[in-house]
Amino acid sequence: MIKGKVLIAQGGGPTAVINQSLVGAVFAAKKAKGSAGVYGAFHGVRGIVNEDFIDLGKEPIANLEKVAKTPCSALGSTRDKPDLKYCQAIFAVLKAHGIGSFFYIGGNDSSDTLRILADEARKAKYALRCVHIPKTIDNDLMVNDHTPGYPSAARFVASAFAGANLDNRALPGVYVGVVMGRHAGFLTAAAALGRKYPDDGPHLIYLPERDFAMDRFLADVKAAWDRHGRCVIAVSEGIHDATGEPIAATLARQVEKDAHGNVQLSGTGALADLLTGAIRANTPIKRVRGDTFGYLQRSFLGCVSDVDAREARVVGVKAVQFAARHGRDGSVVIRRRKGKRYAAEFALVALADVAGKTRVMPAAFIARSGTDVTEAFDGYLRPLVGAKMPEPFRLSAPRVAKILKKK
Amino acid sequence: MIKGKVLIAQGGGPTAVINQSLVGAVFAAKKAKGSAGVYGAFHGVRGIVNEDFIDLGKEPIANLEKVAKTPCSALGSTRDKPDLKYCQAIFAVLKAHGIGSFFYIGGNDSSDTLRILADEARKAKYALRCVHIPKTIDNDLMVNDHTPGYPSAARFVASAFAGANLDNRALPGVYVGVVMGRHAGFLTAAAALGRKYPDDGPHLIYLPERDFAMDRFLADVKAAWDRHGRCVIAVSEGIHDATGEPIAATLARQVEKDAHGNVQLSGTGALADLLTGAIRANTPIKRVRGDTFGYLQRSFLGCVSDVDAREARVVGVKAVQFAARHGRDGSVVIRRRKGKRYAAEFALVALADVAGKTRVMPAAFIARSGTDVTEAFDGYLRPLVGAKMPEPFRLSAPRVAKILKKK
Repeated sequence: MIKGKVLIAQGGGPTAVINQSLVGAVFAAKKAKGSAGVYGAFHGVRGIVNEDFIDLGKEPIANLEKVAKTPCSALGSTRDKPDLKYCQAIFAVLKAHGIGSFFYIGGNDSSDTLRILADEARKAKYALRCVHIPKTIDNDLMVNDHTPGYPSAARFVASAFAGANLDNRALPGVYVGVVMGRHAGFLTAAAALGRKYPDDGPHLIYLPERDFAMDRFLADVKAAWDRHGRCVIAVSEGIHDATGEPIAATLARQVEKDAHGNVQLSGTGALADLLTGAIRANTPIKRVRGDTFGYLQRSFLGCVSDVDAREARVVGVKAVQFAARHGRDGSVVIRRRKGKRYAAEFALVALADVAGKTRVMPAAFIARSGTDVTEAFDGYLRPLVGAKMPEPFRLSAPRVAKILKKK
Repeated sequence: MIKGKVLIAQGGGPTAVINQSLVGAVFAAKKAKGSAGVYGAFHGVRGIVNEDFIDLGKEPIANLEKVAKTPCSALGSTRDKPDLKYCQAIFAVLKAHGIGSFFYIGGNDSSDTLRILADEARKAKYALRCVHIPKTIDNDLMVNDHTPGYPSAARFVASAFAGANLDNRALPGVYVGVVMGRHAGFLTAAAALGRKYPDDGPHLIYLPERDFAMDRFLADVKAAWDRHGRCVIAVSEGIHDATGEPIAATLARQVEKDAHGNVQLSGTGALADLLTGAIRANTPIKRVRGDTFGYLQRSFLGCVSDVDAREARVVGVKAVQFAARHGRDGSVVIRRRKGKRYAAEFALVALADVAGKTRVMPAAFIARSGTDVTEAFDGYLRPLVGAKMPEPFRLSAPRVAKILKKK
């Protein structure tokens, strides 16, 4: 049973399917026994403090279904991390509006915000049900097999590298594509799914789970170039040296940090330019290009995994159902059912199990070379990226015998 | 009637539909009377010199149809621009293989290569039929209403900006997206098609058809920010100051030029970083992000306009049919039939009308402000980007009355 009004908000970076979770939670909250209404807060916890609410119970169902298919937090988002004073301001507003349950759709920073809020609510003896609904393209939430938003972003990255590989094959050179992911390499690793033929790129994959050294990188590139006459490279924005210093951070003239203490890595092409510059300066390779996939990989309109969309809806629904049934705070997690055919299961775990923690790629997903993924990773990701992935094909007709250049 | 063997090659930057034209030309050449076979040259004119041919007549039809749907030159490409000696080497190979017609799929540089080749063939009294099949995401070929490859790239750019706008709405700040296009702003202008609601971005569009001045840019950004509390900006990589000097070129430490004398503008995030740095340094706006769309906009797997795919196929077919019927060299062009409903027509014009020339955005497509497009441009582009463009939706429910912050 739900008590009082339900409040839903979205925090952190948007994803392609984050509104599926919102809409799932709205539908479930409207159905839930005891629910006195469903509000949405604009721009996460900041919207609560500002009493910036929308009456989601009055949103037409047909429009909710359309919003569900629209990428990026329809309620707006925030990077704010509440301290005690901020929490007190939140309670005052929640009390005034009779809100008994708060569902926060977000990643590890947002779940940590929720954990702090739940702790403060307990101390203040305010009866507030706090449930975290997972989302993050980084796929770095503990306990979860994977997180909503990741499969669609992985589909984007795989499609981008499949295309970049074809482009690089048409006009050979070195291509560096920089992918989001501060600490976890899951999204960068998705580049591997763009491969079909044995000589397809990415030929090298650099993950934040392994230390990056420039001299080894240059030797790797040179070796791939000698072998294929071209080279496609996937690089995580979070790559760092052996001391843990991000390669991108050593560059940043003005290091920008958000409220959670994260250094800004995205929204700049500096890392790609550093790497392509190093290749140009230290190898005889002339055609060297670098792209930074940037915000496209989380917001591009029209690149959605159907599996991801479905699961994102379910975690929203389940969050409300779990809150009604179990009457405790927690975080909804996705688990993978054992068996040959892919199937997901959903559970509620303690907030502290997920909040503020970071999961990285298990060693079994990273090739011994440190610059590729394993078949186990391929088997892990392939069922998630969804149906109708376009597939590239090559010409197969025989070569014509040379006449003038016969040997 | 076609004489001897048909040779097909692809030049310049790949597009999403360039293989539709290849496959269209192969099918038409196999049907054409007099045709003694269909070869493909790998990597454009370079493949001719190297006798690097594939017997496309032996390519299974089912595989050709799959290759047609694969982005990026299946035959490989080149940026080589033949001089007299290069042309002589080409003739020697064409003669040896009994090739009577050469179909070159490419943009203005490739058509110029073909023009030079056709001139040299005439001088050498070698009977060679040279027909240019248009393609370029830049949409900058003279005489053409538009060029194959542009509609799909425009669809990518529109989808990317629609997503970036949603992302920017969720987490407000300034977003700069840099789009390909050296001299012509058609592809950058396509960003406007990502808008749906009146306050949607891009709020500012900078095209190479207008001079760029940093102080005016900063004032524009500040004004948009004051109005919307956020700002999405589309910038062409080719923007230049009043003297014609590209803004990106003023940055490049090592200016890289290709054989056609073009400065390298793509494959680096430097321009986006320069613009975001200037905004950060000269305005109080804190969250400023820049993306460079790079090679994704021409190669991304799975972003194709069905109109573009169809027309790209037709220009390949028509090129062979025109050559057989008219018995003269030329360039296939797309024209738009007059009337309310969109329809394309195809014609053969002289190579010199297209070769090496650059079409830019007509004044009627650019708003008086210089930082937006007109309704005429919208009407021009909309029928080209194809069916099933995803559409974003917003929540529409009423706001909740404030309780604590009542005025």
